[in-house]
Amino acid sequence: MPNSSRPRTPLRPKIGVFDSGVGGLTVLRALVERIPDADYLYFGDTARLPYGSKSAATVAHYAVGAVRYLQDEGAELLVIACNTATALALKEIKAAAGVEVIGVVEPGAAAAAAASRTGKVVVIGTEATMASHAYRRALEGLKVEVREKACPLFVPLVEEGWVEHAVTEQVARIYLAEAFSDDARDADVLVLGCTHYPLIKPLLRRVAPEHMAIVDSAESTARAVARQLQIEALRPSAEAKSERRGVPVLKFFATDSAEKFRKMGTRFLGLPVEEVLHVDLKE
Amino acid sequence: MPNSSRPRTPLRPKIGVFDSGVGGLTVLRALVERIPDADYLYFGDTARLPYGSKSAATVAHYAVGAVRYLQDEGAELLVIACNTATALALKEIKAAAGVEVIGVVEPGAAAAAAASRTGKVVVIGTEATMASHAYRRALEGLKVEVREKACPLFVPLVEEGWVEHAVTEQVARIYLAEAFSDDARDADVLVLGCTHYPLIKPLLRRVAPEHMAIVDSAESTARAVARQLQIEALRPSAEAKSERRGVPVLKFFATDSAEKFRKMGTRFLGLPVEEVLHVDLKE
Repeated sequence: MPNSSRPRTPLRPKIGVFDSGVGGLTVLRALVERIPDADYLYFGDTARLPYGSKSAATVAHYAVGAVRYLQDEGAELLVIACNTATALALKEIKAAAGVEVIGVVEPGAAAAAAASRTGKVVVIGTEATMASHAYRRALEGLKVEVREKACPLFVPLVEEGWVEHAVTEQVARIYLAEAFSDDARDADVLVLGCTHYPLIKPLLRRVAPEHMAIVDSAESTARAVARQLQIEALRPSAEAKSERRGVPVLKFFATDSAEKFRKMGTRFLGLPVEEVLHVDLKE
Repeated sequence: MPNSSRPRTPLRPKIGVFDSGVGGLTVLRALVERIPDADYLYFGDTARLPYGSKSAATVAHYAVGAVRYLQDEGAELLVIACNTATALALKEIKAAAGVEVIGVVEPGAAAAAAASRTGKVVVIGTEATMASHAYRRALEGLKVEVREKACPLFVPLVEEGWVEHAVTEQVARIYLAEAFSDDARDADVLVLGCTHYPLIKPLLRRVAPEHMAIVDSAESTARAVARQLQIEALRPSAEAKSERRGVPVLKFFATDSAEKFRKMGTRFLGLPVEEVLHVDLKE
């Protein structure tokens, strides 16, 4: 006998995720774990990365082009999974987009403010993200003192695959010693303000002082997206195999070699990166 | 009494130098030392660097655009001071240019072949330059055996300013140990196949085996340009203050922030980088 109640329309959002390269795949990974029942469109602007060394105007120009592409492909919500683009161009992206836009800075800052007892946090990221002071502004708005520290070698070390390597550990010791010096001595939260950094989180956990809480912007952003969609986010661990878990559909666009994106991407996503379409953004 | 013989037209060439960023300034530096009596136009495609991680098609597209710009500005000879662009796109650049084009690979390979006694050399450079096998082809054409070794961390280490740093030394030891293993054990020449590497030449000199000759492509290229112009190149040291020495005129174009280019560029050029024009290459 057919059920007389109207079937619930399955809420299956189409989420556009944008980054300059493969780093944002750590955000996609967090999203997929928490919101598996969704379609994801990921745009990696690999022909023009890294945004970290570029000016605000250049980054805004590139990001708006990519975001428009994702909307043309049907994205109903946009995640700017790139700290640099969020820091330098979120306002421009929001102005150009016709849908909700969530960046990685606000959620990371909010999580850091919630986690800190001393009211002092350290944020690490690329040169451009730090120079933009986007985290400083967000955290000071939450009455938290902040030390920003650029760590330009972490991205190439991660891309070299040296995620558990003596050199990376030595570099991390140097950077963190500088980060937690003087005024920031009693900071109790370390914010990973770059999407590459989750891959060296275990190493940073070892190198950072024991009492330090580590806030991963990718995780915080995934939770913010779930809230926006009014979806109860799954916890990445326990319910992972529950019946509630849907199957995400992933589609990738890259402005440089699809093959390269596939290879490098798999490491960042922790899942096979399969359907990659090469896109040429000329303007 | 006026000299009755017709005055010699001073040969003052206008030389266009192209790179993806500031690295090519080490080539410009070598050119200025050897051919001071010239006008130089330097184009750094800083908004789209690094070329090292991009596909051949993307690199060719960018390089041809930049080279056309230099010709429009009056360049009579073009130096592709970028190993990646030379390796991936020299043919396309030559086809698009109406003037003589000199890349950095051939001169470096020729100097290495001349310097080697064992007939085996090691070339180090970016991932893309090594993957293109441009040095392999050039050296094998000169009957020299070659080991190519990508050293992706050297560029960010140089840009971090760690040119004399324990971390860079440790990275160099790892890379060179890999480079000179097995078949390449009796190689006696190390070719610096990336324009950033001259800045860590003293460090590499210490880390590399003592008998190893180090060939700097920037130096070799400057000599090749002098030959092409039928100019007797000055030696960088002795005649530097001789009366023969003219005054080079330098003009810079960058696709990203002029201010950033000025700051970073001065370190690479070893001279103040003054007149920088921001250029927007849209196509």
